[in-house]
Amino acid sequence: MKTAITEMCGIEHPIIQGGMHFVGFAELAAAVSNAGGLGTITGLTQRSAADLANEIARCKDMTDKPFAVNLTFLPTLNPPDYPAYVKAIIEGGVTVVETAGRNPAEVLPYLKDAGIKVIHKCTSVRHALKAQSIGCDAVSVDGFECGGHPGEDDIPNMILLPRAADELEIPFVSSGGQADGRSLVASLAMGAEGMNMGTRFIATVEAPVHQNVKDAIVAASELDTSLVMRPLRNTERVLNNAAVTRLLEKEKALGDKIKFEDIVDEVAGVYPRIMLEGEMDIGVWSCGMVAGLINDIPTCEELINRIMSEADTIINDRLARFQAA
Amino acid sequence: MKTAITEMCGIEHPIIQGGMHFVGFAELAAAVSNAGGLGTITGLTQRSAADLANEIARCKDMTDKPFAVNLTFLPTLNPPDYPAYVKAIIEGGVTVVETAGRNPAEVLPYLKDAGIKVIHKCTSVRHALKAQSIGCDAVSVDGFECGGHPGEDDIPNMILLPRAADELEIPFVSSGGQADGRSLVASLAMGAEGMNMGTRFIATVEAPVHQNVKDAIVAASELDTSLVMRPLRNTERVLNNAAVTRLLEKEKALGDKIKFEDIVDEVAGVYPRIMLEGEMDIGVWSCGMVAGLINDIPTCEELINRIMSEADTIINDRLARFQAA
Repeated sequence: MKTAITEMCGIEHPIIQGGMHFVGFAELAAAVSNAGGLGTITGLTQRSAADLANEIARCKDMTDKPFAVNLTFLPTLNPPDYPAYVKAIIEGGVTVVETAGRNPAEVLPYLKDAGIKVIHKCTSVRHALKAQSIGCDAVSVDGFECGGHPGEDDIPNMILLPRAADELEIPFVSSGGQADGRSLVASLAMGAEGMNMGTRFIATVEAPVHQNVKDAIVAASELDTSLVMRPLRNTERVLNNAAVTRLLEKEKALGDKIKFEDIVDEVAGVYPRIMLEGEMDIGVWSCGMVAGLINDIPTCEELINRIMSEADTIINDRLARFQAA
Repeated sequence: MKTAITEMCGIEHPIIQGGMHFVGFAELAAAVSNAGGLGTITGLTQRSAADLANEIARCKDMTDKPFAVNLTFLPTLNPPDYPAYVKAIIEGGVTVVETAGRNPAEVLPYLKDAGIKVIHKCTSVRHALKAQSIGCDAVSVDGFECGGHPGEDDIPNMILLPRAADELEIPFVSSGGQADGRSLVASLAMGAEGMNMGTRFIATVEAPVHQNVKDAIVAASELDTSLVMRPLRNTERVLNNAAVTRLLEKEKALGDKIKFEDIVDEVAGVYPRIMLEGEMDIGVWSCGMVAGLINDIPTCEELINRIMSEADTIINDRLARFQAA
């Protein structure tokens, strides 16, 4: 399939593996890129710019196809050394960067000067327009369904994608709720030029997370996620477990007086233990509603080939048949 | 276009106008059916079974095409005379009934014996499976985006439609977030055999509501709806206005102790005054997020023809072009 996104990124299929903390290592990124999609290394999962440079080099050893690096800008008292991370990305020869969080205006000139394509992740039309106005090449439009941070507007992709298509001039991919050939064709029909998948790629053979995490995603239905940290306006969609229940109860008890410090024990530092050590009960981790559509743990190549085959069948058989009649 | 739904309902295009209180009068239902969709008279907007019989007769004077009647089952101390309404539907020669609210098991045998096709509105896969198991012919799968009652699961159609497709054997239409040819093709791609539109049909020339209501929908963005009555687990998505703000503040102040009696003044009895008299500030009325995708007030025929033309272009031009490359 050829779309504005496949052309921009130099990839075969319009499928992007989005940045995910403690998941987006070189193994997964290379597997997705080797299968014809766009894999993504999560920049800040690497503790230093030197570690990121090393991870990029590891990925290049595993694939000669294009891959991306995710760079997330979150408000924090001790920000990472972003200029050094950007330098590692540029010197590593990375051709696509996925930015997320705050708008990437500060680093954009450096990335653009290096010929890097920048795809900014947005949960609203106004943020997407802002990204377009500062010079991003594309946006990833992230609906209410998504795992991780859906923003505070709660607009699902059935609305957000056509709204983005009405407003944007730059191309965009859908993100949130994307699992299969049905999602891909639906996204393309609503104006996207491709789709970004997160949770779906965690449940693959190559994802470097504990088997318990993959099994939990397969076991989960669409009803098994919750929104935490909503009272702080830093909402995150996570898979339900006992620790999530405790966190939600604490949020409710604290009411409007809640501060992040009050729940930091419940939230912080648990991702790596879940993702890498499989301790399912100790905390929260990002998971989209799309878990309800995930029923197996294929290789990235099997997954991507299946999606493209399903998309072909939907377009050539199902939709054509409706229309011919 | 020919789908399982067009065949079941005997209509030309896979587009249904869903039941809407104080909107679904004969004028709108006939206009939709005359344009090749399936119009729907809202049964309980008629104060008695005799009034419904009269409304059905009025609709038959305006169209010789099939149309539906909506019958909603809500918990109430003084239920309407459902058997009499069902009798009016059967004797009026109506061929399709849209049921909503509680499951329609009690009236289903009478409708089925009369050869009437029953489409039950559901906001979850488990309710859709229940509808299938009791013998409904189809379901209308209603996502979180929808105006009116989205249920309490908050699952948008990007997830709910493919989940329904995975589980159901009977055909289904998408409902919630449906506005145009993009929505239709996306819904068909995700497994639906047609789409149901509510809010979009309110902003048409023929909708028998005050012009102020139509203008407000055109002016609204996707960010201009709120969920009210959530603490009562009887959530309704409504267009924001000053009365909605007051209601939400009252809900918050009452907290867990809220009872319907506490907010009845804010909620009850305002629909007809809004819909028929255009008093925009006095209360709530159902409106989907899809308001953000509605920018004009066409006739039903213009709307339906445009949707089908857009769908053709998306399938034959956009999707085929991606795929050929």
